[in-house]
Amino acid sequence: MLAEIITIGDEILIGQIVDTNSAWMAKQLNLIGVSVKQITSVSDDEQHIMEALKLAENRADIVLITGGLGPTKDDITKKTLAKYFNMGFRNDAGALEMVRQIFEKYKRPLLDINIQQADVPDGCEVIVNKNGTAPCMWFEQNNTIFISMPGVPYEMMYLMDDEILPRIKSRFKLPFIVHKTILTANIGESFLAKEIEEIENSLPAHIKLAYLPKLGLVRLRLSASGDHEAKLKTEVEVYAKQIMAKVNKFVVIDEDIALEKAILNLMESRGLTLSTAESCTGGYIAHLITQHPGCSSVYWGGAVAYAYELKESILGVKENTLTTFGAVSEQTVTEMAEGAIKHFKTDYSIAVSGIAGPDGGTADKPVGTVWIAVSSKNKTIAKVFNFSNKRIQNIERSAASALTMLLNLLKETV
Amino acid sequence: MLAEIITIGDEILIGQIVDTNSAWMAKQLNLIGVSVKQITSVSDDEQHIMEALKLAENRADIVLITGGLGPTKDDITKKTLAKYFNMGFRNDAGALEMVRQIFEKYKRPLLDINIQQADVPDGCEVIVNKNGTAPCMWFEQNNTIFISMPGVPYEMMYLMDDEILPRIKSRFKLPFIVHKTILTANIGESFLAKEIEEIENSLPAHIKLAYLPKLGLVRLRLSASGDHEAKLKTEVEVYAKQIMAKVNKFVVIDEDIALEKAILNLMESRGLTLSTAESCTGGYIAHLITQHPGCSSVYWGGAVAYAYELKESILGVKENTLTTFGAVSEQTVTEMAEGAIKHFKTDYSIAVSGIAGPDGGTADKPVGTVWIAVSSKNKTIAKVFNFSNKRIQNIERSAASALTMLLNLLKETV
Repeated sequence: MLAEIITIGDEILIGQIVDTNSAWMAKQLNLIGVSVKQITSVSDDEQHIMEALKLAENRADIVLITGGLGPTKDDITKKTLAKYFNMGFRNDAGALEMVRQIFEKYKRPLLDINIQQADVPDGCEVIVNKNGTAPCMWFEQNNTIFISMPGVPYEMMYLMDDEILPRIKSRFKLPFIVHKTILTANIGESFLAKEIEEIENSLPAHIKLAYLPKLGLVRLRLSASGDHEAKLKTEVEVYAKQIMAKVNKFVVIDEDIALEKAILNLMESRGLTLSTAESCTGGYIAHLITQHPGCSSVYWGGAVAYAYELKESILGVKENTLTTFGAVSEQTVTEMAEGAIKHFKTDYSIAVSGIAGPDGGTADKPVGTVWIAVSSKNKTIAKVFNFSNKRIQNIERSAASALTMLLNLLKETV
Repeated sequence: MLAEIITIGDEILIGQIVDTNSAWMAKQLNLIGVSVKQITSVSDDEQHIMEALKLAENRADIVLITGGLGPTKDDITKKTLAKYFNMGFRNDAGALEMVRQIFEKYKRPLLDINIQQADVPDGCEVIVNKNGTAPCMWFEQNNTIFISMPGVPYEMMYLMDDEILPRIKSRFKLPFIVHKTILTANIGESFLAKEIEEIENSLPAHIKLAYLPKLGLVRLRLSASGDHEAKLKTEVEVYAKQIMAKVNKFVVIDEDIALEKAILNLMESRGLTLSTAESCTGGYIAHLITQHPGCSSVYWGGAVAYAYELKESILGVKENTLTTFGAVSEQTVTEMAEGAIKHFKTDYSIAVSGIAGPDGGTADKPVGTVWIAVSSKNKTIAKVFNFSNKRIQNIERSAASALTMLLNLLKETV
């Protein structure tokens, strides 16, 4: 069963927004055994949309379309779909009722262009969108299903979760796709490949291995497809165990979760607490951690200490340390980490102080110089990194390095 | 001049990573007057890659390809390009030298598979990648240019900035594309559209207006294309001024920048300082602010106070307030905001406390209940919001609402 995703709208093609919808949709489809063959972003241009629909119809069983359903003139998806399927228009009663309810809830008057949002190509089935004014539309032609959804992420997600995915599951007998991910740290991609070369060469044709490097970590992903889920799972587990035995000391966790989530799970199982003291990462590490539900049993909070004054008042860094060694130094980052443990009363802490850039560098501390410390109640490890001159990248790499250092410290004290 | 972007790799199609490269590349291309016609993600499958290349060759003048250049077996881009262009292989001396240098820098032994990274299709021009071991390759066929780059974001960005974009600019006489963005708050998309309907209808064919709604804000984007840059800029400014005059009270700023950056600019121009006190947003607001270079002149830092204890110890929230009204209450969020001003010694502060979910809700405070306060030295405004049951979305919407509240408070006190 093959699906394709088509996103419609100039905003992706001029780079104003990043297409996060497609990755989310692809993940959900894979989980129910539908492979995504292609993701295509096209502009709000009738002829181009028609061509993309035709090509997708030839390749795929299911075509998911997002975007271009707003009430304004730049959105032409509905008109183009009517033309593609050679249909006229009707005003859909269910869709109109939903538009009415939404405007009533927000106590806004219903405008003509809002009523027109309930106009749909007359041969489609309408799936009511409970979170927005643009209806979802289901078409079928030549054994291909086309589903048009709004591009607003949470409206699309609700429709997928509650309507589209259940309908696809009940309609088709789907093959199973089993993924197994092993997260590794402290080893490069090519060294990893060399270590597990023999295992990789022994994989059967229906099991694939992929290397996904990111910010100093490498994810290994085994993917198997076939008709017998239990058999696939067993097979994949066998190969995963072989890989983990071979590169054991580099394995963080054998789940497809983020590094910080692996750390949270480990700390929760040991009843440990964590705080953060961030300067150049500016709350990014706290944000990574607090994305995860249930983090509050481990993570107590922390400081974003951008100014000298806050490093002193919240974390207890000595003024003398800051003036003698500077904010970006082993001494300061050590006092930040130990101050976090003391003031926030947690078992472990992370502290980061660096020059994220693009300005603020000096000859001996160029942009990209970052000091990171991790502390337990009886040990602090501090390390300096030299990243690049790109601010966002320095923030992300500092966070990944800090989390890897914390993981290594936690592993030391098993 | 039309470009297309093709990303190669299963990780996007199974939803393991979000394709941030394409948006970045599209933005850079637009800035030099190259329009992006289509963005296509295909899997590591030879036949599918060949088809995508053929279709792109027929539509575009420039095809930018990322991904699939790693040293491991799952990466087949180079082999596929050699087949597509009917070429053999050569080991490129410049590319090999770069691989050697990188392995020397990190003091790692050079493996055979790393030496093979310098193997390239023999008819391509190699552009040396100074930040990684995969070379960039430039091909030409039937008046279309194909450029293959690694998918690692910063390697691709460096190559684009320093090599690819300058070469494209010097090779072609490019039309100018002028964008002008107006960021609005506190008004819905359809109301905005109704307000400026007459102006929109009066736009000439070469100027387009797009509505980009996100998290309660709407961006209006005017795009003009043509041969005379100065003339286009003047034209776009005339229409932008008409729009801003019509919806003046909703305009945040007439630049394509983030809301928090607009706030930073405004506060910097007034010599004001800011701190944050975050519970459920967990550092996300601090992270949004500290993404921007130069933020330290305005932003001093703040607290991520997840645990009750930290709300008391860092922010001075009274224990009695927490036990009587709860952490998610007008009283607590007010004390958090006022505590931030007092303890962090800033002119303004933002405080957020809510139930991000998916767990932790109660009958009277369901998941999605979020109290937000913004404070100046003599005024605090607190407001409750009822968002959804999705954690990440609640964090993002809380941050956007908090920033909008701060902007409104700053506007009050002009």
